[in-house]
Amino acid sequence: MTSSKRDVGVPRILGGLGGECLAEFLGTFVLIAFGCGSVAVAVVGLPGSGRQADAFGPGNWLIIAFGWGFAVAFGVYISGGVSGAHLNPAVTLAFALRRGFAWAKVPAYWLAQLVGAFVAAALVYAVYRPAINAYDVANNVPTRTGSLDTFAVFATFPAKYFGGGLAGPLLDQIVGTALLVALIAALIDRRNQGPGSNLAPLLIGFLVVAIGLTYGTNAGYAINPARDLGPRLWTWIEGWGPLAFPGAGTYFDNYWWVPIVGPLIGGVAGILIYDGLIATSLAARARAEQRDVPEPEVGRTGD
Amino acid sequence: MTSSKRDVGVPRILGGLGGECLAEFLGTFVLIAFGCGSVAVAVVGLPGSGRQADAFGPGNWLIIAFGWGFAVAFGVYISGGVSGAHLNPAVTLAFALRRGFAWAKVPAYWLAQLVGAFVAAALVYAVYRPAINAYDVANNVPTRTGSLDTFAVFATFPAKYFGGGLAGPLLDQIVGTALLVALIAALIDRRNQGPGSNLAPLLIGFLVVAIGLTYGTNAGYAINPARDLGPRLWTWIEGWGPLAFPGAGTYFDNYWWVPIVGPLIGGVAGILIYDGLIATSLAARARAEQRDVPEPEVGRTGD
Amino acid sequence: MTSSKRDVGVPRILGGLGGECLAEFLGTFVLIAFGCGSVAVAVVGLPGSGRQADAFGPGNWLIIAFGWGFAVAFGVYISGGVSGAHLNPAVTLAFALRRGFAWAKVPAYWLAQLVGAFVAAALVYAVYRPAINAYDVANNVPTRTGSLDTFAVFATFPAKYFGGGLAGPLLDQIVGTALLVALIAALIDRRNQGPGSNLAPLLIGFLVVAIGLTYGTNAGYAINPARDLGPRLWTWIEGWGPLAFPGAGTYFDNYWWVPIVGPLIGGVAGILIYDGLIATSLAARARAEQRDVPEPEVGRTGD
Amino acid sequence: MTSSKRDVGVPRILGGLGGECLAEFLGTFVLIAFGCGSVAVAVVGLPGSGRQADAFGPGNWLIIAFGWGFAVAFGVYISGGVSGAHLNPAVTLAFALRRGFAWAKVPAYWLAQLVGAFVAAALVYAVYRPAINAYDVANNVPTRTGSLDTFAVFATFPAKYFGGGLAGPLLDQIVGTALLVALIAALIDRRNQGPGSNLAPLLIGFLVVAIGLTYGTNAGYAINPARDLGPRLWTWIEGWGPLAFPGAGTYFDNYWWVPIVGPLIGGVAGILIYDGLIATSLAARARAEQRDVPEPEVGRTGD
Repeated sequence: MTSSKRDVGVPRILGGLGGECLAEFLGTFVLIAFGCGSVAVAVVGLPGSGRQADAFGPGNWLIIAFGWGFAVAFGVYISGGVSGAHLNPAVTLAFALRRGFAWAKVPAYWLAQLVGAFVAAALVYAVYRPAINAYDVANNVPTRTGSLDTFAVFATFPAKYFGGGLAGPLLDQIVGTALLVALIAALIDRRNQGPGSNLAPLLIGFLVVAIGLTYGTNAGYAINPARDLGPRLWTWIEGWGPLAFPGAGTYFDNYWWVPIVGPLIGGVAGILIYDGLIATSLAARARAEQRDVPEPEVGRTGD
Repeated sequence: MTSSKRDVGVPRILGGLGGECLAEFLGTFVLIAFGCGSVAVAVVGLPGSGRQADAFGPGNWLIIAFGWGFAVAFGVYISGGVSGAHLNPAVTLAFALRRGFAWAKVPAYWLAQLVGAFVAAALVYAVYRPAINAYDVANNVPTRTGSLDTFAVFATFPAKYFGGGLAGPLLDQIVGTALLVALIAALIDRRNQGPGSNLAPLLIGFLVVAIGLTYGTNAGYAINPARDLGPRLWTWIEGWGPLAFPGAGTYFDNYWWVPIVGPLIGGVAGILIYDGLIATSLAARARAEQRDVPEPEVGRTGD
Repeated sequence: MTSSKRDVGVPRILGGLGGECLAEFLGTFVLIAFGCGSVAVAVVGLPGSGRQADAFGPGNWLIIAFGWGFAVAFGVYISGGVSGAHLNPAVTLAFALRRGFAWAKVPAYWLAQLVGAFVAAALVYAVYRPAINAYDVANNVPTRTGSLDTFAVFATFPAKYFGGGLAGPLLDQIVGTALLVALIAALIDRRNQGPGSNLAPLLIGFLVVAIGLTYGTNAGYAINPARDLGPRLWTWIEGWGPLAFPGAGTYFDNYWWVPIVGPLIGGVAGILIYDGLIATSLAARARAEQRDVPEPEVGRTGD
Repeated sequence: MTSSKRDVGVPRILGGLGGECLAEFLGTFVLIAFGCGSVAVAVVGLPGSGRQADAFGPGNWLIIAFGWGFAVAFGVYISGGVSGAHLNPAVTLAFALRRGFAWAKVPAYWLAQLVGAFVAAALVYAVYRPAINAYDVANNVPTRTGSLDTFAVFATFPAKYFGGGLAGPLLDQIVGTALLVALIAALIDRRNQGPGSNLAPLLIGFLVVAIGLTYGTNAGYAINPARDLGPRLWTWIEGWGPLAFPGAGTYFDNYWWVPIVGPLIGGVAGILIYDGLIATSLAARARAEQRDVPEPEVGRTGD
């Protein structure tokens, strides 16, 4: 076939930062469209739902964990060839710090990620508004401000067992994101043994499944400032009020900044741990063997 | 071994559209044989079933989501080498519009897909008729026309929370199919980072798992006109009556056209979004780098 | 490292049929050790089990479906390089009929598969005997002959909704095995688009997950004469009596031959369907393109 | 990008055993951080938990099985390029016995694995302490010594149906680890048909999912002395007392050595079975074909 239609008249800027921002926007959009969609299915979508006590049983949790995992995989697959598919300000920060990603691009990437998450939250709301309304009616919740379960479709909050303390959820976000970023660094490091055949995006998806199955219940495993803040802004506009900002419920308060700060710290911790304990040894071995293996190319997750 | 037995005397037409239609027929047959089978297991097959309230719990939903996902993967694997494995009129339309698939072949592909889906629905019915009958008896449903749960084995209908409105399910079908087709476009675009080793069919299967886990409960995620219309025709013949056509139940009416029109619109939207936000940038980058990467070959999903 | 220890003094016969039979034995052993183990976990293993009504809920079914699927994948991975990993008399028959597998080897393969399945059933029994006994005690089942649930750990029987008729389960076995063998043929056909990187065994495992999720509840998806007969012989020795032979329970009788005959018919049907509808077209296309692609090598599933 | 920052000034020892021990430490840390985390989610994390009877239903078991499986996959991916990713003293022993792994390195590997598991258990405890406390309060368990469910987050114990006998769980550990090591040997044997594209770590993860789904409920499928002993030491320090050492509960006693001795025996059995039934035939075939295929490289699981 001819590709002339697509190639002629393409604005040159799309070959650079403009195209990368569009890709980060679309990739994060896909991430949230699938991810928040999975919580919607688990909480307000399933025909058997409508009772608050059953909204987060183990079956629902498997739906959410695999939903978010595939969400990440497909967000990376759609945008990886253009922007490297960070889709997460914590990843962008860690790559700027330790993988030579240009600091000048960081604000643009962060903004594109946030906007993509926000717009996708609006789409999820458009599709699920009838289900959300029906759920609130069935549970006698007169206003959005009292509807923590439906807020959970979009943004995160800590588990009851933290008793309102923020140190626990903050630690949880740091640990989860450190595991995420350390493993991403491993999966795309050509000196290590990451998967070939462009399967790193799938493995990164499985990684997010794993984080959901192992740390997800503490505080909703945002592990990504854009993933939480974008949909949170949408819920604020749509009337969830204090649940969104400052992030206050019956047993927690001022929570909104935790899923921003925690992941940023965790991502840096993760890449430092990987570099300190693994990449250093790989470099030492490479020098000893006089090999000259090329570094992982920034912005090419899936190679 | 010798391959002489298979190659001698093969009708020449099978190397062209005739063989492609057979492949689309068999691929869509496999899709429906597995897909509708998974709903049958979840609703009428499991020994614990027989109670309407339990037919769509989260565990059942995981069976259905992975069932349909693998159904797509194996439908693509069996037919991909011959026809490109569209298996979905919405995919065929999108590829005709933006990937150079010959418009002249569109009606033949559509027909083969529809016939494959219809025949597979007959097979599912043959295997599961005793289970369907037992389910209706256990729930005191005297006729097929009152048996929405068993109709769900074959075709789709909107969730109760839409209150009979068709705009909501139509939007759901557009969104689901747009995500499907945009991601398929990404997974098979050689300028992007789709999986190698002929694993695109598996990833497309996981994509359908993801759509099921994130948008499936709104309206049964047909996201494929043939997938819904073929089995719907079978249920009409077998006595489900108005549930099939015009698609009328206790809380919805005239639904039959939604899973046809919605996916066709959504597929076009999906490919336009992908081309506008991603393919354009890949083309700009390719020109800038003076590279000459070949376009994705139409009809070769799994390369 | 040196491989001298392993290579010196190896009996020459192991390079031929002797080694292949050992591999079929071990591969089928692995298949049953995992597969029947998964049913044991679901029925008698889970701490919450012990109540008959809960033994086959949707969560249990997911355990069984993924358990048997991975069982097949790992049975193929362990034996594939030596014997081609048929692990199933129905596959061996189909390959003899249409893929040039030597008829003279068929009896030896069949025997090795059956013995492997029998010995693995003995192992599963050795590990799970305490759990089986505790389950029977908890359900007031005084003898093995009345313990259909624990018999289900090893061998298959039809669902209640068939009302004792054998035509339904026979059709089910034919359909399930036809899908199995047609898809195996597709996944290993080098003219088609099977997975590379030796991932066909994993895909065949997912195929068995799919069959379990879509046809498994009708009659336990033996789809493999050795898988059912081997463990059935073990249960007969261990006192399950008529449940094993002639395969008689409260609502079925003379069932033992169905999971033998059904799969043999189904496997042949599957390969004929694949060859008729797909392989023929691939051959026609290959001739048209004057290409000379090598045939799939018999006995090399995973290439 | 430049890699100079990372390569300059790297201690030479990291290219040898020092780096390997760091990698085994981090790999086992990742294994336990995810693995024990998954049990924490299933038992004390899910919002619906808090009732002891529901802590191990089929949905919870799926969370645990996939959690530990992905834990192994990512533990291998992060460390494989440096140390070969044994992460398990039983694997190290089997490789020393039959794959030329240097006996002199065995103690260092074992220690690194144990320390990694211990430190990760401390991290899991730090994150989940509030959840563990809340669970014990909800179930009226005044001290850690009476809290078998929360002990299960960290270490293993036999199922009730063994009635306190240790022969049954010991056999279970031998069988589980034999399957693990025999299959690992198959998956990394270049003469056999293991997966390419560095996907062996993922397949080994799925293997552990399979073992969990098929033998996990007997005794918690430690199948790895470090996986059990490291977290057990932590629970001993944190007050679980006799549950940890000597491993005594209401229906079992002196259990602590079983998940150490069983896996060591099972791993040796597994590699001997693989070498006797499969590797021998592959060697015979290789000699017959006069081929000279290189042996699997020790310490390179994922190639």
